Amino acid sequence: MTDCPHPTPLSKVDITCSFWTGRLEAVRVGALPFIYDQLKRTGRWDCLKLQWKPGDPNKPHRFWDSDMAKWLEAACHSLRVQPDPFLASLVEEAVDMIRGAQQEDGYINSYYTVVEPGRCWTNIAWSHEMYCAGHLLEAALAHHSYTQSTHLLTPVLRYVSHIGSVFGPDEGQNPGYPGHQCLELALLRAYEETDGNEMLLDLATFFIEERGQVHPHGDHYYDIEAKRRNEDPFVGPMRKGGRRFEYFQADLPVREVAIQEDGIQGHSVRAMYWLTAVAHLARLSKDESLHIAAKRLWTSVMERKMYITGGLGAIGEWEGFGPDYYLPNESGYLETCASIGLVFFAHQMLLLEPLESKYAQVLERALYNGVLVGMGLDGRSWFYDNPLAVVEEGLKRSEWFEVACCPPNVARLLTSLEKYIYTFSPDGDTLYVNMYLSSSATITLSCGSVLRITQKSKGPWFGGTSLLIEGAPGEVGKLKVVLRKPEGVRRFDIAIDDTPVMQEQSEYTQVLTCSSFCDVSASRVTVSVQFEYQPRTIHPHPLDLANFRHISLARGPFIYCAESIDNPHIPDLRAIRVDEGSPWEEVVDKESFKRWGVEYVKLRTTVWLECGEEDRRKVELTLIPILLWANRGLSTMRVWLPLA
Amino acid sequence: MTDCPHPTPLSKVDITCSFWTGRLEAVRVGALPFIYDQLKRTGRWDCLKLQWKPGDPNKPHRFWDSDMAKWLEAACHSLRVQPDPFLASLVEEAVDMIRGAQQEDGYINSYYTVVEPGRCWTNIAWSHEMYCAGHLLEAALAHHSYTQSTHLLTPVLRYVSHIGSVFGPDEGQNPGYPGHQCLELALLRAYEETDGNEMLLDLATFFIEERGQVHPHGDHYYDIEAKRRNEDPFVGPMRKGGRRFEYFQADLPVREVAIQEDGIQGHSVRAMYWLTAVAHLARLSKDESLHIAAKRLWTSVMERKMYITGGLGAIGEWEGFGPDYYLPNESGYLETCASIGLVFFAHQMLLLEPLESKYAQVLERALYNGVLVGMGLDGRSWFYDNPLAVVEEGLKRSEWFEVACCPPNVARLLTSLEKYIYTFSPDGDTLYVNMYLSSSATITLSCGSVLRITQKSKGPWFGGTSLLIEGAPGEVGKLKVVLRKPEGVRRFDIAIDDTPVMQEQSEYTQVLTCSSFCDVSASRVTVSVQFEYQPRTIHPHPLDLANFRHISLARGPFIYCAESIDNPHIPDLRAIRVDEGSPWEEVVDKESFKRWGVEYVKLRTTVWLECGEEDRRKVELTLIPILLWANRGLSTMRVWLPLA
Repeated sequence: MTDCPHPTPLSKVDITCSFWTGRLEAVRVGALPFIYDQLKRTGRWDCLKLQWKPGDPNKPHRFWDSDMAKWLEAACHSLRVQPDPFLASLVEEAVDMIRGAQQEDGYINSYYTVVEPGRCWTNIAWSHEMYCAGHLLEAALAHHSYTQSTHLLTPVLRYVSHIGSVFGPDEGQNPGYPGHQCLELALLRAYEETDGNEMLLDLATFFIEERGQVHPHGDHYYDIEAKRRNEDPFVGPMRKGGRRFEYFQADLPVREVAIQEDGIQGHSVRAMYWLTAVAHLARLSKDESLHIAAKRLWTSVMERKMYITGGLGAIGEWEGFGPDYYLPNESGYLETCASIGLVFFAHQMLLLEPLESKYAQVLERALYNGVLVGMGLDGRSWFYDNPLAVVEEGLKRSEWFEVACCPPNVARLLTSLEKYIYTFSPDGDTLYVNMYLSSSATITLSCGSVLRITQKSKGPWFGGTSLLIEGAPGEVGKLKVVLRKPEGVRRFDIAIDDTPVMQEQSEYTQVLTCSSFCDVSASRVTVSVQFEYQPRTIHPHPLDLANFRHISLARGPFIYCAESIDNPHIPDLRAIRVDEGSPWEEVVDKESFKRWGVEYVKLRTTVWLECGEEDRRKVELTLIPILLWANRGLSTMRVWLPLA
Repeated sequence: MTDCPHPTPLSKVDITCSFWTGRLEAVRVGALPFIYDQLKRTGRWDCLKLQWKPGDPNKPHRFWDSDMAKWLEAACHSLRVQPDPFLASLVEEAVDMIRGAQQEDGYINSYYTVVEPGRCWTNIAWSHEMYCAGHLLEAALAHHSYTQSTHLLTPVLRYVSHIGSVFGPDEGQNPGYPGHQCLELALLRAYEETDGNEMLLDLATFFIEERGQVHPHGDHYYDIEAKRRNEDPFVGPMRKGGRRFEYFQADLPVREVAIQEDGIQGHSVRAMYWLTAVAHLARLSKDESLHIAAKRLWTSVMERKMYITGGLGAIGEWEGFGPDYYLPNESGYLETCASIGLVFFAHQMLLLEPLESKYAQVLERALYNGVLVGMGLDGRSWFYDNPLAVVEEGLKRSEWFEVACCPPNVARLLTSLEKYIYTFSPDGDTLYVNMYLSSSATITLSCGSVLRITQKSKGPWFGGTSLLIEGAPGEVGKLKVVLRKPEGVRRFDIAIDDTPVMQEQSEYTQVLTCSSFCDVSASRVTVSVQFEYQPRTIHPHPLDLANFRHISLARGPFIYCAESIDNPHIPDLRAIRVDEGSPWEEVVDKESFKRWGVEYVKLRTTVWLECGEEDRRKVELTLIPILLWANRGLSTMRVWLPLA
């Protein structure tokens, strides 16, 4: 097992990449105020005032607190970078409401306080109490990081203590764990960010180790609590022949789930949050068997259950996984939140194994495709599920959802993008460059030296970057830099202060290490790398019959699709047939998405049209990155293209 | 428009084909007593005693009466052919209960009498009252045909009169129509079978013509009745961008639905029952525009929405149609009842256009595949939905369903199989032979002559038949015979009393007419036809990307599939690759399904195995007709096979 890198020697990150500043502006100016309006309109905001009474409209729901908490987290992330008085006043109001909603024993949950008082902790399989608590804790951490005040963190940690008193392994405690994983992940993050409150680590460890256990003297916990309620437990929607509670990944303890032949099962967002926490705990605890379980389940996800966009969940019925290699396009679920969870999971795996660039690759795939496709370019319209093909015009982005997890989840992920650009070795002295995008950041080395890193990149549309590293004279040489070689690039030429560097290149990790590259007294050095993205073809797995004899196109981190709006001369996108070796022309398009400030690279080739009735003929086909589709009116779309 | 053939100059049919006697025995010995037990166990039987009170178990449901009525219809069909004292006593009990459940005004519906008294006819969009009434009427017709008594028919016709007084075009009547089509179809059948009670025809005509109308002075009827209830109407689950009420095919009047570019939409069983009635009314009324509408919608179904098994319904969410050519295998719905409805619809179209053998072909496809696959060989286990591929072992036939439409529906269709063997010209003097299966029947010609027809066929597994036609001297020559050429047969050699007949053969209709074939004084003649079934390959439509570069195998009316149980050496059926021109060996298998008395023809070839990791290698692949799958334990299955 590798030593654990510390995740955050980073500060004062400023993202200057124009692609990303556009997306972050859509969150700040679009999503954050827009989601606030929706929270307000639907009662999700005011429910924390605990004034709802039976008969009133906008009856609180069990997971409403989480919608607000995610928005609060995103707002705090955004405010840390960019002041906004109105947003700041809303954050204050939210914090006051949460503080005001806290009960004497520390409990905070609007639904169980006003709608089902006295029934708290009676149905943790479905109550979402711990899920909401997890998001509260994440919001409190973001608030602390933004304000440096513990005005929210203190009461939320008191709530966590209350949970830790109710649940645990001891006599008089309930051996239960979250029905929707989330709190585990937040506890571990809090443990790291608040410098080691052992209660947080212990509770997370308990939840992770207890999950799926059946006690010799008793039942599964979800059976125990259901029996107390005189009910049968609802085991969740499930595949035919599936295991009880697999919807929650609570059918078996994690190490046993990991060795099941059919791999990861059940609800995909739950699964991703869970595995994020499992990998995180493996790193903190240096528990090899947990690390192995996380790796196995990673493989199950990535090799057998993942769509090429980093989307997860073939089956809408349980918002989750289907059989291995069963990846239907039109009916696929691919919940936006599941891709967000995959970003978290990939990030934790990368922290465990920083030289395994596959984790960074999947992180980018999910972020640039599975996550970004979920938010309209305006930041005010959303997809909950993201099928890879749409046959009929009619699918429209929604302004809001009854189950509104995705919009604020996208917002909080994008506003914390800085986390994913770099990772660090345990001593903090090796910088792994995962994402190539223009930005500047301050890093603190183990010896206390402070360096400023300025990345000037042509990314994400074009390859290559230069990293200017600056510090006090003699400090710069203390840093080691590892550059990730992105998938599918041809050259990868490194230079230090314009002098080419001979490089050792590993095919397996696709990374290149360069270190000890400058003289001892230097106060600045520039590491540059040249590489080029080109269109590349992706083939499906032989057992993926939904895409049999199809290909898809990618360029850099982007997965491409054909949208009917760019191809008005093609009556039905299903009629196209692509020649395997067809050359793809790259065209910078500054016009199509100008309204949203997006310039990008589209791909063009000629394809056959085969409609059955008419003769075959050649036509031009244009592809755009999938994140851009469904912004210009009703259309149809396909990612996978049938071969001629 | 063709003249309308009379549907039933047929009597005393005795089916002797061993395949079918086996299936009918499974219904008589298996399904009928088994379904009765389920009706009894779940309260569906006794609810007609109207004794349920709030708090009692087995609370009646709105469509329970239909489950019992379908069982009753099937029991009566079966008793007509084969006496069974126990079954007969149950039928008597059922009839007495229905009679006893009738209210003073004629109304019969257990749910609205005991669970929601006073709310009858307030929500015909969803109440299933007319649906239950339709099945009651069908049961009453079957009971009348079996007993010649009007003990059930009279009260049910009184109920229909009550419905006709509540609903209709006149002042004081409600301009409503069934939320689940069924009554229309039963009314028209009753009209024909009870010799022309005009009220029945008028009410059916009203329902069909009124459906989907929006009145200048008002709303859609489902809006009107919802407004009266102070509710919003539930328009049903629906495709994105779909039309309101299209779930019920009540979005537009039938002739307008027929010219929509996207063809038939919504719930597929509703659609089939509706189109059956539309085609039936077109025949009875000789309304050309209605005939054209039925034809257009037939084309929409058959060419663009139908699975090769005669299964319908790509989308489970609304148990109905998806976009044109969108026919996913694993997630397909293909409700057994929808294929039953397709048999009805095809039959009515065939009666309208008896020389169009495409209707008889689809009828056979649906019957031998889409319907028969829905019942286990034991007659005691069922599939509600019938996907064309199953990737994981786990799918098991059910003993019963909460929504239990399919089991008794299969039973009533199979027990009325005789209807589909022959159709007749309007004057009754031309016999169209649609199905080749051993049987005998009596037919009555327009002049009153009575003939006996004995068919000795090697069907359905082998081609060829001989028809022995017997009658008083000189009568036999009055009959004209039209033999349908089944799809995909190579030869079609007709002989009369062993003398080959020169034949005119139409590619379009695939029928062959032979008439005036014997001398005036003959009292018997044998018409024989030789043809051979061979394995044939079916290719998908170019826009059907779910089956891109796949083929499927058929032989005679049977669609074949690979079931894992016959192919234990193939680790995953998705790994096979079939050579396009691969020869298929036909093997008579008397062993595999011996337990259920089934002998059949299996198909065998060698295919490539392509698992991704190991080398390609050749293995043997065995296919069985899809109706036989899922009878020998858990397995996986595929109909469409990827090409090498």
